[in-house]
Parts: sequence; C-alpha cells; structure tokens
Amino acid sequence: MGETHYTLADIAEHIGATLKGDGAKVICGIASLSAATGQHVSFLNNTKYVKYLSATHAAAVILAPSYVEKCSIAMLVMDDPYVGYAKVAQLFDRAPAVIAGIHPSAMIGEASQIAASATVAANVVIGEGVRIGEQTQIHPGVVIADNVTIGNHCIIFPNVTLYHDVNIANRVHIHANTVIGSDGFGNARDKQGVWLKIPQLGAVDIHDDVEIGASVTIDRGALDDTVIARGVKLDNQIQVGHNVHIGENTAIAAGTGIAGSTRIGKNCMISGLVGFAGHFDVADGAVITGMTKVTKAITKPGIYSSGTVIEPHRDWLKHAVHFRQLGDIVTRIKKLELSIKDGFKTEGVD
Amino acid sequence: MGETHYTLADIAEHIGATLKGDGAKVICGIASLSAATGQHVSFLNNTKYVKYLSATHAAAVILAPSYVEKCSIAMLVMDDPYVGYAKVAQLFDRAPAVIAGIHPSAMIGEASQIAASATVAANVVIGEGVRIGEQTQIHPGVVIADNVTIGNHCIIFPNVTLYHDVNIANRVHIHANTVIGSDGFGNARDKQGVWLKIPQLGAVDIHDDVEIGASVTIDRGALDDTVIARGVKLDNQIQVGHNVHIGENTAIAAGTGIAGSTRIGKNCMISGLVGFAGHFDVADGAVITGMTKVTKAITKPGIYSSGTVIEPHRDWLKHAVHFRQLGDIVTRIKKLELSIKDGFKTEGVD
Amino acid sequence: MGETHYTLADIAEHIGATLKGDGAKVICGIASLSAATGQHVSFLNNTKYVKYLSATHAAAVILAPSYVEKCSIAMLVMDDPYVGYAKVAQLFDRAPAVIAGIHPSAMIGEASQIAASATVAANVVIGEGVRIGEQTQIHPGVVIADNVTIGNHCIIFPNVTLYHDVNIANRVHIHANTVIGSDGFGNARDKQGVWLKIPQLGAVDIHDDVEIGASVTIDRGALDDTVIARGVKLDNQIQVGHNVHIGENTAIAAGTGIAGSTRIGKNCMISGLVGFAGHFDVADGAVITGMTKVTKAITKPGIYSSGTVIEPHRDWLKHAVHFRQLGDIVTRIKKLELSIKDGFKTEGVD
Repeated sequence: MGETHYTLADIAEHIGATLKGDGAKVICGIASLSAATGQHVSFLNNTKYVKYLSATHAAAVILAPSYVEKCSIAMLVMDDPYVGYAKVAQLFDRAPAVIAGIHPSAMIGEASQIAASATVAANVVIGEGVRIGEQTQIHPGVVIADNVTIGNHCIIFPNVTLYHDVNIANRVHIHANTVIGSDGFGNARDKQGVWLKIPQLGAVDIHDDVEIGASVTIDRGALDDTVIARGVKLDNQIQVGHNVHIGENTAIAAGTGIAGSTRIGKNCMISGLVGFAGHFDVADGAVITGMTKVTKAITKPGIYSSGTVIEPHRDWLKHAVHFRQLGDIVTRIKKLELSIKDGFKTEGVD
Repeated sequence: MGETHYTLADIAEHIGATLKGDGAKVICGIASLSAATGQHVSFLNNTKYVKYLSATHAAAVILAPSYVEKCSIAMLVMDDPYVGYAKVAQLFDRAPAVIAGIHPSAMIGEASQIAASATVAANVVIGEGVRIGEQTQIHPGVVIADNVTIGNHCIIFPNVTLYHDVNIANRVHIHANTVIGSDGFGNARDKQGVWLKIPQLGAVDIHDDVEIGASVTIDRGALDDTVIARGVKLDNQIQVGHNVHIGENTAIAAGTGIAGSTRIGKNCMISGLVGFAGHFDVADGAVITGMTKVTKAITKPGIYSSGTVIEPHRDWLKHAVHFRQLGDIVTRIKKLELSIKDGFKTEGVD
Repeated sequence: MGETHYTLADIAEHIGATLKGDGAKVICGIASLSAATGQHVSFLNNTKYVKYLSATHAAAVILAPSYVEKCSIAMLVMDDPYVGYAKVAQLFDRAPAVIAGIHPSAMIGEASQIAASATVAANVVIGEGVRIGEQTQIHPGVVIADNVTIGNHCIIFPNVTLYHDVNIANRVHIHANTVIGSDGFGNARDKQGVWLKIPQLGAVDIHDDVEIGASVTIDRGALDDTVIARGVKLDNQIQVGHNVHIGENTAIAAGTGIAGSTRIGKNCMISGLVGFAGHFDVADGAVITGMTKVTKAITKPGIYSSGTVIEPHRDWLKHAVHFRQLGDIVTRIKKLELSIKDGFKTEGVD
C-alpha cells in the first residue's frame, strides 16, 4: 500500500477553504490536534479542543474564521471545519481498491445483468433476474436472491444477505452481515393458540445515498414495502420491522429497534438502543435520546427522552422502590393537604 | 415469475369462509382496504379500519359476521379474518421456489445424509455426521458443523451458522445470518482476576414449527441443552443465552435479550428490547411490554412493564432529577405528617 | 466421535485439587449435581445447591474445603470449585477437531502468509497482505480483507467478516457472523441537512486472550484505532463504536451498545442491554447492571444502575404517570411545608 500525498494547496481546493500559509507543503494524512505530526493536517471543530491548538505539531489546521487569531501555523479557513475534515478524510481513505469484473467462483443465476464496471467478488451467489449497476461492488460471501435490483456506485460488504425482490438505488453502502428483506414478524393466533405464519408479500425499497451499518436487519413489508428514504444513515445492529418508513436524511444510532408500520419523519436524529412500539408516526426533525421507549406518536419536532439517570446501585434500589410507592406518596400528600385545609378551617371556625 | 390467480370460490374454500358474492371472480393478490384494486381481496381485522370499508376498490373483503351489514361488496365471512388473511397470503407468496438437489459447489462432510428431496444450495459447507431431512432447504452460504440434525420441511436462509451437535426438528425456519449453538458466556475468574473459559458442553434443541428471525443468536448449553419448544416464534436480533428454555407457542419480538438459565413459559408474548436477567422462571401466559427490565421471576400470568413514559427532554430532565430525590421527598412527607399530628395534638392539649 | 475418559486421579491433577476417594475411578463427563450419573464428576459452587449434595449420583464432587464434612462421596477439594469446573469442562469439550491446512476451495490473496499449522477451511476468502499465525483456525465462510493480521492459536468461527487492517493478537476467539472493522458511524451535516460521510481511517486492535461472541460488531476508528485490551470477554450482539477502548479483563454481556470514544476501564463487569452514550470514561472495576443508561463518566468503582423495577402493567401505568407529575408533587410538598410553618407561626403570634 503506497502512501498518498497532497499539497496543502490541493487540499484547500478540495475542501473549499481559504489557505493561509505555504500551499506547497506536502501532507500525507489527517490526525487530531494532539496526535498530528508535521505531515498531517488537523482540524478544530469543537471549542473544547481550542486548548490543543497552540501545542499541535500539525502542518496546518482546518478551522472556522473566528479562530484565525488564535492560530499561529498554516490554516485552512472555512465555515464548517467538520465538513472540511470529512472531505480530507476522503482523500486519505485506505480502504482497498477493488478490481472490476466477476470472480470465477461467483455464481450468477439466469437472466441476471451485471454492469461491466461492477465488481462481483469471490463466493458471491446471485439468483435469477438480478440487476447490478455500474461501479457497484459486491464483496465476498454476499448472497443475493432472485429479482433484486441494485443501482450504480453501491458497495455491498461481505456476508450480506439480500432476500428476493429487494430494490436498492444508487450510492448505497450496506455493511457486513446485514440482512435485507427477511420476513416481517407476522403471525395470526388460531383458536388453539398456535401461531399461523403470515407470508410477507411486500419488499424493501432503499433509496439513493443510504448507508446501512453492519448486522442490521430490515424486514420486507407484509403487503406494501418497507421504505428507507434518500440519505438515511443507519448505524450497526438496528432492527427495522415490516412496513416501516424512514424519512430522508434521518440518522439512527446502533441497537435501535423499530417495530412494524412505524413512520419516522425526515431529518430525525435517533440515538442508540431506542425502541419504537410501532404503528404510529414520528414528526420530521424529532430528536430522541438513547434508550428512550417510544410508545406513541411524536407529533412535533423537539428532543424526547424516557428512563432514569444512572446512579449508585444502592441509591437506585431505594428510588426504584419509591417509584412503586408513588401512588401512596400522592395519597399521603392529598391527605396532608386536606388535613391542613381542615385544620385551619377548624381553627377559623373556633 | 408468472402471476398467480385464484377464483373467489377457491379462496373461500382455502380459508374456510362463507362466500357472499360471485365465486367466479378472478383474484390475483391481497392488499389493505385502502391499497386494494379490483383484482385484490382485502380484509377487515381491526375496528379502526371500518372507515375504509365503504371506499375500498377491493373485489372482496374477508370480515367477521358482525360487519356483514356494513359491507356492500363481495365478502368472505369468517370468525377470524386475520387468520383468513394469513391463509390467503400463503397463496400469493412470491418467495422463489428452489430446486431439490445438491449444488455442485456445496461441500458435504463424511457420513452426512442429505434426503433426496432436500435442497443444498451453492457454497453451503456441511460437516461430518450431519443429517438433513426431506424437503428441507439449505440456502447459499450456510455453514453447518459436525453432527447437526435437521428434520423435514425446514428452511435455513443464507449465511446462517449452525455449530456442532445442534438439533433442529421439523418445519423450522431460520432466517439469514442467524447463529445457533455458539458458546454460552461462561467464564470463571481466577485469583489474578483473569477469566478462565468454561467450555460449553451442551447443545441446542429446536422443536417443531419454530420460526427464528434474522441475526438471532442462540447459545449452546453449558452442561445441559438450550431448548426452544414447539411453535415458538422469535423475531430478529434476539439473544438467547445458554440453558434458556422457551415454552411452546411463546412469541418474542426483536432485540430482546435472555440471559442464561431463564425459563420462559408457554404462550407468553414478549415485546422488543426486553431484558431478562437470567436464572429464574417466567410463568405461562406472561405478557411483557417493550424494553421491560425483568430482574426476577414472574410467577403468574398478566401484563408486566417497567421504565418511564417518553416526554420532552426538558421535562424529563426535571423528573429524572426528582426520581433521585425520592428518598428526600418521602422524608419530607413523613416530617409533614409528624408536624401536623404534633400540631393538632398540641392544639388538642391546649 | 469417541468418548473421552479420565481417571479421578488424572482430573485431580489437572485441576490442582486434593483427591479424597478412589483415584482409579473412570470419569466420562461433568454434570450438575442433580443430573450427574455414576460416571460423572460434579461440582458445588453455590450455597443454594448444597441441598442436592446428599442425593447426587455423581462419582465425585469438586467442592471447597468448608463443604468436606457435608459430603459422603469422593471429593476433589479446592478453594475455587468453579475454576475446577471450568478446567474439567475443558477436558470434555466435544467441539470437533479441525485439520491443519488450506482447503482447496479457500481463496488467498497475494503476499498473504498462512502458518503451516493453521487451518483455513472451505470457502474462506482472504485478501492481500494477510498474516495468519500458528495453530489458528479460520472456519468456513469467513471473509478477511487486505492487510489483516491474526496471531497464534486464534479461532475465527464461520461467516465472520474482518475488514482491512484489523489486528488480532494471540488466543483470540471470535464467534460466528461477527463483524470487526466496519466503518464507524461518522457523518458531517452540510448546510442543506445532507449527511457527508466521514471515511473511517483507523483500524481495530484486539489484544491477547480476548473472546468475542456471535453477531458482535466492532467498528474501526475514525482517526486512531478502536482497542479491545487483553483478556476482555464480550458476549453476543454487542456493538462497539469507533475509538472505544475496553480495558483488560473487562466482561460485557449481550446486547450492550457502546457509543464512539467511550473508554471503559479494566476489570469492569457490564450486564446486558446497557447503553453507553459515548465520549467519556468508565472507571476500572465499575459494575453496571442490566439495561442501565450510562450517560456520563463513572469516576469510581462500584455498582451502578438506572431504570425502574418490573411490576404489573396496570400499576406501572399509574406510577409512570406520577413520574411525570413529580414536579407538581414537589411543588405541593413545598406548599405544605410553607403552610405549616406559617400556620404555626400564626398560632405562635396569636
């Protein structure tokens, strides 16, 4: 693996920043302010790291105009240094390149169309009637069932399983061991209490620019499709039930579970291990903190939470007991209120 | 993939409903009341959808006798329309058919027996001493270790891993990327604080008619076996620890974690992201709502919960602080009660 | 699979126990006190099982010196019988042996070095520049990307995915379908609200003697590496975000999610379905109970919890409503306190 190099001038141009300093300086990577050495560019994104600015060994720092006065080395000045960081990181990504073409060990079913510029790696198994677009990479061990469509510039990482009839648009990344299109959890209980399986006849539609983490599961719809809209970002180990809709540019952190027919709006930010009970809507722009139990519709944007705050176990035990006594506590307060009212009244009457 | 067609009379017979309307009408699918077109059958299962009944474009509706008066189109009348829906959906399931036989790329160890009507797909790896029954499908990328037994009419979806000595009965479906028989989490701490692995000598027994979702993990027993009884339905991303027993026809939603040696009864309904602390029993018929923290035995049927209700973050922060002040709150109430008692007593003495 | 046999004397020596009884007795397995038969050794680890001691059919029991008086059969006496159990279980582990060598169906990239005593099973795909050490086993369906290093005596179970540049030291076990080195969840929001991917340039370092469960996901670092220190034990379905550090000998139960840049200390014990909000430290020796919401640093060892205790749903509903009234409850108490103070004052004035 050779080393990648850019001049500071190249980088300024790539990220759209104003350069203050020597544009000929050679940069071979990006690092945090404290870890950077003389061949690294660094960035200042968060006020709490200003203290590292004076001592950094970086060749240059990406920062906002308001910090220019505080910086005595080369600078790449732009309004959003975090976006600048993202763009520089793209230049130095060391993810291995893949070679276009179909590996001899890959198996491809009848009537499937693989674009000439696509990569189908070793041990991939592709069913019938599958279409794979230009520049798309299918990594080793991926299994793609019949009639799946994958657009252009997608990356499907190793050991992913795509069930039949799943539709994936363009520039979608799906990380390793994720499953898309498995049966939704649909069972009808008969008179004997035995569960009767409800076949899941819908599919899954994943729109452009979606990224899906590792070991995610997205179930196919019961009748209609499960839909992940354009620009959605899903972290690892997320469960998406049948007929869920996730709106554009919503981001969801790891371990969150979304029960069937939940409709999550656009531009939501949902933390990890959140649970959605299903069959309701969540407003555009809702922000939900970690481990929140979402049991009903969220009708307007804002930040939402549930649970209690971590504390020493011994204290928690007492408070948890008191929680279960809250009915009694309220009754005692009512009684006190009455006593006082009556007591004063009695006094008054006297 | 050709289109499947049935007459309304065929469907009535298949689901055991009384037909009111033209039995010759051709039906090519099932859809919700609002999405159905003239070639679809639909169903009315939930009172809250009655409003869609008059406007539906469906060719016919499966409904309960009590709604017959409200319906002006063809009807399939039966006591449990949801079961009727399940059975019609089975007719229109478009999951691709598989061809019996062993794919040339599959690898099968010595002394393994694969039934003639079974399917072993591409890139399947099967160890030694494995037995696979009639009509069972092993999808691509599945790895089956030594001495696994799988009965008849099972479906093992792609990229599933079955460890050695796992026993799977008949009509069991296991969705993609699920792992059965991995080591239970057993470690003994030595005097130096270093963990010593406890080899897991038990196996996993999965009885008839079980369905297991995608990315589920079921650990093998430490000494005895982990057992999933007949008719159990597990959603995606569930964790089942070593020596857990799950009773007949219990259904568990996604993301739930069950620690070692928990014994869950029959006919339980457990929602998503529930946690079981392990080493206790849960009574038959228990119903547990989402994200509940089950830390002790449940000795009788009923509905159980824990946690708090979602609310705006700003309000929640205050309430969470008050929760930690509950000891203080109770002390203040006691003091008030004493004050009043003493106050009145004093007054009385006066 | 033949049966394994040891004499009681062999076992006493293997586990470092003092034998009381016939050392020539042949033992063919280990079982719990109640399940053991005359060819089994058993163990007494927990006071609550003493009641089974007199009735056990075991050939011998591993127990602590304090129980010798209560036992009338052969004994293996040692200070920590649970460690003894772990060591005997190692003797009777029936996990199938593997044969060293590279299976003909395995694919190995250029410049990769596989030790002669290593096993590379069927359908394994290994990239370029990979090194695999002595006695290490790579099970079927594993995909290993470029420049991964794996040390000696490791076991990588089926269908695991290792992304590029992951480093795994010695005696590391990674269970089936786990993913190591997937991209961390890093996105920068541009002015239009669209997420811009931040390439993840770090790697993952897994030190000696780590065990990782099934369907775990460990993300690669954003700039620096994600680190799992020596002797860490991770259960199934755990999510480890980018740049997390987990300290030596810490054990974590299933379903726990650790957000980016959390630093967990040494010798911690963390239960299942715990959530860490990220970007803070957890002290050495911290113990965290199941489903706890860890939203801030834990600065000293101890046991920590959050949440409420399970109760019948009907009761819980009332208490959850009262939780949201805690502000009002506190206000009412303040008012009562003032009333009484004023009331008495008034009386005093009178």
